[in-house]
Amino acid sequence: MTHSNIAAACQALSHLDLDTNPNVLRQKSRDFFWYSPVLKARLDEVCGDFVVSPRNEAEVIEVLRTCYAHDVAVTVRGAGTGNYGQAMPLAGGCVMHMQNMAQIKEISTGRVVVEPGCLLKDIDLACREESGQELRMISSTWSTATIGGYIAGGSGGIGSVHWGSLRDFGNILRIRVITMEKEPRVMDITGADMARVSHAYGTNGIITEIEMPLAPAYEWCDVFLAFDTFEDAMACADDVAHEDGILLKLASVFEAPTAHAYFKRVQPYVSAGTHLVGLMVAPQSMDGFLAFLEANAPSARLIYRSDQSDWARSPGHVFEYSWNHTTLRALKVDPSITYLQIRFAGDEKRAQVETMRRKFEGEVITHLEVTREHGRPIFTGLSMVKFTSEARLDEIVAAHEEIGAMIFNPHRYTLEEGGRQSTDERQLKFKAEADPKGLLNPGKMISWHDPDWTYDEMYSFPDMQQRRSS
Amino acid sequence: MTHSNIAAACQALSHLDLDTNPNVLRQKSRDFFWYSPVLKARLDEVCGDFVVSPRNEAEVIEVLRTCYAHDVAVTVRGAGTGNYGQAMPLAGGCVMHMQNMAQIKEISTGRVVVEPGCLLKDIDLACREESGQELRMISSTWSTATIGGYIAGGSGGIGSVHWGSLRDFGNILRIRVITMEKEPRVMDITGADMARVSHAYGTNGIITEIEMPLAPAYEWCDVFLAFDTFEDAMACADDVAHEDGILLKLASVFEAPTAHAYFKRVQPYVSAGTHLVGLMVAPQSMDGFLAFLEANAPSARLIYRSDQSDWARSPGHVFEYSWNHTTLRALKVDPSITYLQIRFAGDEKRAQVETMRRKFEGEVITHLEVTREHGRPIFTGLSMVKFTSEARLDEIVAAHEEIGAMIFNPHRYTLEEGGRQSTDERQLKFKAEADPKGLLNPGKMISWHDPDWTYDEMYSFPDMQQRRSS
Ligand SMILES: Cc1cc2nc3c(=O)[nH]c(=O)nc-3n(C[C@H](O)[C@H](O)[C@H](O)COP(=O)(O)OP(=O)(O)OC[C@H]3O[C@@H](n4cnc5c(N)ncnc54)[C@H](O)[C@@H]3O)c2cc1C
Ligand SMILES: Cc1cc2nc3c(=O)[nH]c(=O)nc-3n(C[C@H](O)[C@H](O)[C@H](O)COP(=O)(O)OP(=O)(O)OC[C@H]3O[C@@H](n4cnc5c(N)ncnc54)[C@H](O)[C@@H]3O)c2cc1C
Repeated sequence: MTHSNIAAACQALSHLDLDTNPNVLRQKSRDFFWYSPVLKARLDEVCGDFVVSPRNEAEVIEVLRTCYAHDVAVTVRGAGTGNYGQAMPLAGGCVMHMQNMAQIKEISTGRVVVEPGCLLKDIDLACREESGQELRMISSTWSTATIGGYIAGGSGGIGSVHWGSLRDFGNILRIRVITMEKEPRVMDITGADMARVSHAYGTNGIITEIEMPLAPAYEWCDVFLAFDTFEDAMACADDVAHEDGILLKLASVFEAPTAHAYFKRVQPYVSAGTHLVGLMVAPQSMDGFLAFLEANAPSARLIYRSDQSDWARSPGHVFEYSWNHTTLRALKVDPSITYLQIRFAGDEKRAQVETMRRKFEGEVITHLEVTREHGRPIFTGLSMVKFTSEARLDEIVAAHEEIGAMIFNPHRYTLEEGGRQSTDERQLKFKAEADPKGLLNPGKMISWHDPDWTYDEMYSFPDMQQRRSS
Repeated sequence: MTHSNIAAACQALSHLDLDTNPNVLRQKSRDFFWYSPVLKARLDEVCGDFVVSPRNEAEVIEVLRTCYAHDVAVTVRGAGTGNYGQAMPLAGGCVMHMQNMAQIKEISTGRVVVEPGCLLKDIDLACREESGQELRMISSTWSTATIGGYIAGGSGGIGSVHWGSLRDFGNILRIRVITMEKEPRVMDITGADMARVSHAYGTNGIITEIEMPLAPAYEWCDVFLAFDTFEDAMACADDVAHEDGILLKLASVFEAPTAHAYFKRVQPYVSAGTHLVGLMVAPQSMDGFLAFLEANAPSARLIYRSDQSDWARSPGHVFEYSWNHTTLRALKVDPSITYLQIRFAGDEKRAQVETMRRKFEGEVITHLEVTREHGRPIFTGLSMVKFTSEARLDEIVAAHEEIGAMIFNPHRYTLEEGGRQSTDERQLKFKAEADPKGLLNPGKMISWHDPDWTYDEMYSFPDMQQRRSS
């Protein structure tokens, strides 16, 4: 990809909504990669060469056809709230921004059809207003993130305690993708084929339409529970998620001192030693929930419920304390903080959490989200880590893996390293079909660039672009 | 309770909707106890002395006050579809029939308030029409049973694969009960107190109002899957219930030859060796469900889906093949058939089912309903038994208990023997408060009559009424 390639593509696309302003370029080339000091050190200079914002599917096709002809890389971008440098154009080239494709096309019972640039929030508000429904699950970046970025880069979130994760059968109904070939094809993908393009970081097709299942929208009651011991807090969140008759949308556990140190509006109601549980409970389940607490979690102190609050200042949505918003709030107070994403599952999950908590006391602050996996509640850990060095971070990762807790490493920018450290044959095969020149979001799928990679060290994309000296 | 007691009560209540016609009396004194040859032999002569059908709560109170004054027993009745002789007036006296209290009082998001005599079907139709909602769970006797009888006598049913059972926190929101005292009291019961009166067979209060949680109503897709091996059928129903993204309302497993021998409209599409799985799948989950089948249950043959059927005659609702309707259909073909209710749970549940299936081949025909218990799918067995003798039935029960499968014995008419064979202190305590004379549905709570009962043999109520020689 030379200057002249890029200039030619830019020229050919100049009638579209296209931007080459350096400030815009830099801003649209970044995401929340800086959560990770490891990625910050490696990706800070990454920058695309132009941003184009297609207004419809025809323009998406035109951009792909043109960039294919000129061998220009295309990295698609929703809102850029991803954490793994997912949306960052490692090789430069075209950043395709989906902001102009934000239409809600159809709402019906149990389903919604949208364009990829729709914000999660806008989908929810429209579905609620029109039909009393909402998305089954959302990212905690609900108010800023797009559905396209969520499907292509996210994993689950608020709602996963009930519905499992995005990758589970039935949690995405249909994805329409455009391939990057001489003549781009339009493909509607459903069922098992979904795994080929969902959570593929836009490496094997551009999503232009999405059909999602809907759940009923309730006036969810936001709840905070305070505990004196972490064990009680963890047990309560886990146990209530096992109550089939109590409808939850969120169950989070925050080890002390998270609530006191990082949750400003919660601080007046807790002490440094308080372990916090955050919940979203369906209003019709509140009575059952209180009965559960009385019977099974007598040590819980109900310090906040949004439907009957006497707090001087509202804490806002409880879900904006959860998932990666926990890290965000901590980071604002203590810039040394980063995080790890961990899977604690099976009968030993509580014991595993305790083992890690004890081992890294003061260095790792435990944060758990209860999520469902194959019919059972498990813990998705997004524990906060006080960063000292990459070597130490690797030690912490290794310690988790040793006891059987799987790490989804947010300090890596490739699909494989952020996932299960193995080739996803379905995604790789589909990339060969849909992106024969390997121009879509280059550097994110190791198996495409280096099929024999062994994961002994961090992958380093050889074609990583250095800031163009213009 | 003498003739003159009864005559006096009748006289005092004669301005109400009261009936003493012997045919009506006999009919309103029976339920589906005859499913059990054991109960049939013992309860066939049971008959009340008069039937009264209160039109509102004030009349319920009047009946209770009057019968209390005259020491007349009161056994409340919904539609009489219970299986344990639950609604049968063992000591005679007053049968209080709730047919005139069938109002739907309020439908709101997530909730409905109804009178106890409402049919489940009527609640669902009204909620669907007014708000696109329906009950979380229903009995397979949906079209004939009342909500009061379901709460007081039922356990769960269609919907339990998602929501657990009626007794779980949050699956009943509020019950209003009237006590049987000199001056009856009206009590609104919520939360943990619910366990005192729900599933108490009307032994400690008359329910006059019920508030239930609602779920979204979908055009559920009815599905039948055919399998050549029982193992595959059982595994498929169990596995699909573990898919958090696939919304189910029912997952039933019918061992061969159930489908061929007892399901007339299904028969043309199966052979004697076919093991059948019946499912209700949310329409938005059908794609995910088909993807699941392809990936995880390749031996399944999809022989019926209600949204795309080419069957000459519709089989009707799949749920009317499930739960105790399976037994009902079998009974119509083979009158020797009765059933057992069994809990197969834990990691060994499939192995337990297989052990019993092999041990009683040809004698017990396995029928499983997947239900949720504390966050995990388990099997509620309603296996059919070719009855030979009470002794043999007891042997079959014992064999199940030996391998750790709990039996809820439908061949007993008491709460304890149909349940966990132990005193429910909450129910007993509440009876002392609410029914000091012990006049409500006498003979159904052993701990009231004989606190030291040891469950070595079948309980026999000493005051069992013999047909009054008038
Ligand atoms: C504070 C915070 C909290 C978060 N909480 C959660 C959470 O709860 N759950 C969760 O899953 N994630 C979470 N994330 C990660 C991220 O916000 C979500 O995944 C979010 O939905 C991404 O949406 P986006 O529009 O910002 O996507 P982007 O970051 O712009 O893109 C994400 C990926 O999707 C690709 N992509 C975008 N649009 C398309 C398209 N149309 N076709 C093909 N590929 C496309 C991009 O190339 C990129 O690889 C969080 C991040 C932060 C910073
Ligand atoms: C074919 C068949 C299928 C069935 N399937 C299921 C199933 O799927 N799930 C299930 O749980 N059960 C099932 N049952 C059992 C039974 O049908 C249900 O429990 C049903 O809901 C009972 O309702 P009913 O109106 O017929 O109650 P009844 O049989 O009239 O009464 C049941 C009990 O409730 C008490 N009662 C009734 N009304 C009141 C009141 N207002 N206040 C206090 N107590 C009251 C009665 O005294 C009695 O003890 C089935 C039975 C049959 C015959």
